[in-house]
Amino acid sequence: MAAFELRPVFLAVGILLIILAVFMIPPMVADVAVRHPDWQVFLAASGVTLFAGVSLVLMNRGPRAPEMTNRQAFLLVTLAWAVMALFAALPLAFSELELSYADAVFEAMSGITTTGATVIVGLEHAPPGILLWRAILQWLGGIGIIVMGVAILPLLRVGGMQLVRAESSDLSEKILPRAAQVASAIGMIYLALTLVCATLYYFAGMTPFEASAHAMTTIATGGYSTRDASIGAFGSPAIEYIAIVFMILGSLPFVLYIQATNGQFLPLARDIQVRWFLAILAAFTIAIAVWLAFDDGYEAHYSLRLAAFNVVSLVTTTGFASADYSLWGTFPIAALFFLMCVGGCTGSTTGGIKIFRFTVLYAVASNQLARLVRPHGVFVPTFNKRPLSEAAAIGVMAFISMFGLCFALIAIALSALGLDYLTAMSGALTALANVGPGLGPLIGPAGSFSGLPDSAKWLLSFAMLIGRLELFTVLVLLTPRFWRG
Amino acid sequence: MAAFELRPVFLAVGILLIILAVFMIPPMVADVAVRHPDWQVFLAASGVTLFAGVSLVLMNRGPRAPEMTNRQAFLLVTLAWAVMALFAALPLAFSELELSYADAVFEAMSGITTTGATVIVGLEHAPPGILLWRAILQWLGGIGIIVMGVAILPLLRVGGMQLVRAESSDLSEKILPRAAQVASAIGMIYLALTLVCATLYYFAGMTPFEASAHAMTTIATGGYSTRDASIGAFGSPAIEYIAIVFMILGSLPFVLYIQATNGQFLPLARDIQVRWFLAILAAFTIAIAVWLAFDDGYEAHYSLRLAAFNVVSLVTTTGFASADYSLWGTFPIAALFFLMCVGGCTGSTTGGIKIFRFTVLYAVASNQLARLVRPHGVFVPTFNKRPLSEAAAIGVMAFISMFGLCFALIAIALSALGLDYLTAMSGALTALANVGPGLGPLIGPAGSFSGLPDSAKWLLSFAMLIGRLELFTVLVLLTPRFWRG
Repeated sequence: MAAFELRPVFLAVGILLIILAVFMIPPMVADVAVRHPDWQVFLAASGVTLFAGVSLVLMNRGPRAPEMTNRQAFLLVTLAWAVMALFAALPLAFSELELSYADAVFEAMSGITTTGATVIVGLEHAPPGILLWRAILQWLGGIGIIVMGVAILPLLRVGGMQLVRAESSDLSEKILPRAAQVASAIGMIYLALTLVCATLYYFAGMTPFEASAHAMTTIATGGYSTRDASIGAFGSPAIEYIAIVFMILGSLPFVLYIQATNGQFLPLARDIQVRWFLAILAAFTIAIAVWLAFDDGYEAHYSLRLAAFNVVSLVTTTGFASADYSLWGTFPIAALFFLMCVGGCTGSTTGGIKIFRFTVLYAVASNQLARLVRPHGVFVPTFNKRPLSEAAAIGVMAFISMFGLCFALIAIALSALGLDYLTAMSGALTALANVGPGLGPLIGPAGSFSGLPDSAKWLLSFAMLIGRLELFTVLVLLTPRFWRG
Repeated sequence: MAAFELRPVFLAVGILLIILAVFMIPPMVADVAVRHPDWQVFLAASGVTLFAGVSLVLMNRGPRAPEMTNRQAFLLVTLAWAVMALFAALPLAFSELELSYADAVFEAMSGITTTGATVIVGLEHAPPGILLWRAILQWLGGIGIIVMGVAILPLLRVGGMQLVRAESSDLSEKILPRAAQVASAIGMIYLALTLVCATLYYFAGMTPFEASAHAMTTIATGGYSTRDASIGAFGSPAIEYIAIVFMILGSLPFVLYIQATNGQFLPLARDIQVRWFLAILAAFTIAIAVWLAFDDGYEAHYSLRLAAFNVVSLVTTTGFASADYSLWGTFPIAALFFLMCVGGCTGSTTGGIKIFRFTVLYAVASNQLARLVRPHGVFVPTFNKRPLSEAAAIGVMAFISMFGLCFALIAIALSALGLDYLTAMSGALTALANVGPGLGPLIGPAGSFSGLPDSAKWLLSFAMLIGRLELFTVLVLLTPRFWRG
């Protein structure tokens, strides 16, 4: 077995742990401010995490390493998310909530992957430090996935993401010279959007604390709330509309915002992902609103608000709820189930299959149909008006097929652990697509994941991880070839 | 609009209708034999069908036409199945069962597509002509799909089926010179297997009538029975084991039987589809048997028989039932749900996604993972030890993705018609994969489709049609390009 140089990987993980340790300080301050004894939990967890991070850095530093190999990059990406979740679970495990370690890891993984599924019941009575920590985890996970989606995954050609590279590399050549600059520009925009969202939430009636926490989980399309009843607890149309706008903003390609800040709004308005995404949201919002008005007899405007909020929440993979849509009848349940896997645009904070893959599927399927009619005709499928390479098309199709296969295997495994059909099906999908709540009384918007067996929680944590990292990034680590010289 | 020469298409449909009219005679004889007045129904239906068929032939015959174009072939395939179903529905609509036309078309479509979903309750009291007619429809549908899968679809390159052409064209060059000869050889084997199956059923205790009817629907992996409780009504392990063997025989590639009849069993034993298919059957039979033994406390041997029969029945898309597996608990329900879409080998009577597409998915996914590790390495995915072209890989992946999309859209549409989640999900899948029964109390193995609204029956009939014809064959007719000059 040839040498597999792990030092650069461990070095990078160490740096990430130090960052994580630093971000444990705001929750500590929040607990100190209300004189809640749990501040000691954050101090201890921060110390442990800092110690681990510094140790890794000291043990693995050395002369400036050459560029990372593909193998190192894959290992780093998976290891980074997994290790972050394990350390992020420490405050949750040690806090007065007395979560089991399975629960704590589930909650941390759900946070860092911006899923938003929770095992905590009674959020209203949880210490502020824990509530802030959950929000910060999603916020960090959100910016982490955007940067990864813009700077790392396209280079690794995961699931057809080289398509997106073509887009963003063009951009970086023309507008900003380097990926690091793109990442920092995106970071600034992300921060600015969060601040604007928090301000609006505040003026709509949230406390400063709630406004900050919800702003972080809205822009990250994460979905953690400070209330058991989620956004619905506020009973405020204004808050719901603000959430709708910022969930959508969190689901668009962030690279296009860079151009928009330079006054170029056309690329954003013309992007095929953005158009499809908004069209899907509009179509299902109207369909479900019509159902609610006719079948459930709700007033028209209220139907539209309910439908818009919850469709946007699930398609953007946020997972906020303004009502228990499990009770809306047969059509909304089935529609929302499938909408969970759609996802937003790539290079955003959303999970799921993602819109660009549906546009590629449409292009490939149209191309197949055209060739069936004229076998000798020349038809080239396109993506965003450029020819689509066969390699990219295969990558995208393989991703969609593998998503279906992983969903099936996880749902079957969950059912073997005793979960009923609706819980197993929606649980597998909501975790894999990083949405949050599932369907049904147990894990639906009115329930929580606390009642599931620990084995199911570990499995769902794994599902969130592979879903967040575009499947192949994690699956490649499971092949013997990866570990051979 | 350029001329779209429809005469050869209508001529072929006319010939098929004449064949259909001829096959209405045996049910008439069966009714005459027991002096049941419904023989008149078959006489009338046969007359109408014969008249339509002869008219089409007379109106569209002419000088020997050149080879069919692709467009003509696509139109013929879809039109043939749809028109056959409409005329095959006549005896069902006029019989003493007094089915509505929606019910009669559903039942006929379910027959001719070898699906096996039924709207008839009280089969034990149905006239023998009707029972025989349902069996004959599945038997004709079975041989029809094999011949189409061997001789027509691969030439049309539907959903990656050119892969299978490579196999069978080799065969026809080496062993039998022409496709027509392959088709007639397959017809002989199909007939022989049916006779052997019927004989074995008879010796295992069925009446000659029941043995014939069940043999026809077993080898066609159709699943229509003469009893409401399906094969389970006989309570005979021997009958169940015979059914298991012949359902599997109906699911293997029939071209390989031609070689086997020449004493060459190796191609059959070495075929990658056959191996994967048997492995999947074995794995899920054992898993569900273990669940039944431990969770439901059934005796070991009985568990194995129950699991084997129902797993084989659903994976082969037959749809016989020996028990109400809806009551077996969480794991079997979820496992059987997903097993419905697997299907058998191509060039057989089975529906579903089909095994060769899963082997291609595995090859493509492994290839993707290998390339991720070594971006500059040369890896070529293979199918049955031959290199897999990118066009074929895209065709297969596009099919799997489209299958998922069609499933989702049909399930959502069914739920909009008021069907509950489990009924909508399993109904959409069982129709699209041509299995037969769904899950749950309404359409599960203990129920029937009679309780669904007519709109749902029409939608499910359409789903059976597109599922039977490999999706793209029908979808291509819906594109404007198809009808342009």
